[in-house]
Amino acid sequence: MSKPFSIGVDLGGTNLRVAVVSREGEIVKRITVSSTGNVIDSLTAAIERLFSDKINGIGLAVAGLTDGTKILSAPNLPILNEIDLVGILQGRFNTPVYMGNDASMAALGESVSGAGKDLNTFVMLTLGTGIGGGVVYNRKLLNIAGELGHVIVEPGGKLCGCGGKGCLEAYASARAMTMVAMEAIELKRETMMAKDSGGEITPANIYKYALQGDPLAIEIFKTAGFYLGIGIANYINIFGPDAIILMGGLIGAWDIYVRKAIKTAAASAFKYLFAKAEIIPSTLGGDAGIIGAAELTYC
Amino acid sequence: MSKPFSIGVDLGGTNLRVAVVSREGEIVKRITVSSTGNVIDSLTAAIERLFSDKINGIGLAVAGLTDGTKILSAPNLPILNEIDLVGILQGRFNTPVYMGNDASMAALGESVSGAGKDLNTFVMLTLGTGIGGGVVYNRKLLNIAGELGHVIVEPGGKLCGCGGKGCLEAYASARAMTMVAMEAIELKRETMMAKDSGGEITPANIYKYALQGDPLAIEIFKTAGFYLGIGIANYINIFGPDAIILMGGLIGAWDIYVRKAIKTAAASAFKYLFAKAEIIPSTLGGDAGIIGAAELTYC
Repeated sequence: MSKPFSIGVDLGGTNLRVAVVSREGEIVKRITVSSTGNVIDSLTAAIERLFSDKINGIGLAVAGLTDGTKILSAPNLPILNEIDLVGILQGRFNTPVYMGNDASMAALGESVSGAGKDLNTFVMLTLGTGIGGGVVYNRKLLNIAGELGHVIVEPGGKLCGCGGKGCLEAYASARAMTMVAMEAIELKRETMMAKDSGGEITPANIYKYALQGDPLAIEIFKTAGFYLGIGIANYINIFGPDAIILMGGLIGAWDIYVRKAIKTAAASAFKYLFAKAEIIPSTLGGDAGIIGAAELTYC
Repeated sequence: MSKPFSIGVDLGGTNLRVAVVSREGEIVKRITVSSTGNVIDSLTAAIERLFSDKINGIGLAVAGLTDGTKILSAPNLPILNEIDLVGILQGRFNTPVYMGNDASMAALGESVSGAGKDLNTFVMLTLGTGIGGGVVYNRKLLNIAGELGHVIVEPGGKLCGCGGKGCLEAYASARAMTMVAMEAIELKRETMMAKDSGGEITPANIYKYALQGDPLAIEIFKTAGFYLGIGIANYINIFGPDAIILMGGLIGAWDIYVRKAIKTAAASAFKYLFAKAEIIPSTLGGDAGIIGAAELTYC
């Protein structure tokens, strides 16, 4: 019989976040530790403090590719590429340990106790520096090897970090928007953003100037929003979901960026399928990944 | 315990095709009946001739939207929109009756005894007048409500029959290519195809002239192939499949159309995911749907 709590770990951020999560997807207790220094020791010590005989297992959310037990590529925490973290923790705590991609874990978390709680099928997109995503299909996580941030939104378009061309991430991510702004400033385009050009162009300040009416800043968010809408229309046409759930820093720019995306998706998607899909924000935010990772021990 | 044979019915073509299919996905006996006249009577009589106590059930492949028991929309056989075919057959033969979309059934068929037999995950595309598709994921049919022919390949592009814009079907289907050829002939563009312009523009004769070097005919297939490649790249990036399986009349034009698609997908898709995906033809062709429908009785 399964035990009532699990430990969820989010290895995706600048800090390691470890929490005790109930079967119902509520965080009961949490610890945050630095990801500098000896990551394995810090992580093990944090889990040690939270572990008890009521713990069903440990779930890990990693930024990068994973096959469920091994990390295939973890760009932001390269030490994890070389060690058998699942094996180490299983040996140390004598409990099952599972691993999943952080965007997929966020989708799973939303389905347990977030915006997807009452939905059968949804696509979740994490909109930040990069773009990730996960699909919950008939209430189960589709553990697809695919990369939702790399749906193609502009045929033959910009070269993407993945080696492909025209990907969503190359047009609608924070990184993409920041690059467009910096290029425009370099080309001396007129914009209030030039005031902040001492290397401090962030989506937050592009948005600030957009709200103040700066035409370039507005154009950047609208263009990114247009491509986000094409990506969303693709997910709607392919999966026929009940909802698209959006999370990540960029949804703070909902009024320009996401509104433009919704308008574009409405014009581009299969009408019948668009009509049944809501486009809504995450309710768990940064906790979605940790809750999803914990849920892995019950899947 | 399940019985060793099923009856598969393909309601998608100009004729109704009914067959006895073994558990291993081999067609043992088949009957073809006209879809004009009383479809229900013809279908029931055909099944009657093939039915025995070794039959595990009946599976129906329909062109159109279905929820598994009812047809939601069957554009080419509208009589089916109004009757409870599953109920009628269940009552008549006292055996389980299932229903699926024909492109999904074709994908299932290829996974039982066709090009997908040894593959865990693949996307199947049926390339004909329209474009349909199905996904087999971890050896199971993903019965998604989505419409693979409506992946968006040109943002803000041509209006599609689905009400959306820029869909694959609006660029890479037989209907799309024929329309482009007819418009070009109307505009008096120089082409050998003008000779056949008495309403007889078909993909087969566009291809014939392409092979003879007609620049317009070649351009039509290459443009369609380019967009097919963008669609394929999207499926590769989203599902991370082992293969893309192609079937339908248009794959007769493999050397121009599919080669261009493969080249485009190679340049556009996530490199890592493209490298593990083969792009291959169906081996069951027109029988895939009937074999997949029969398999439904074992799923």
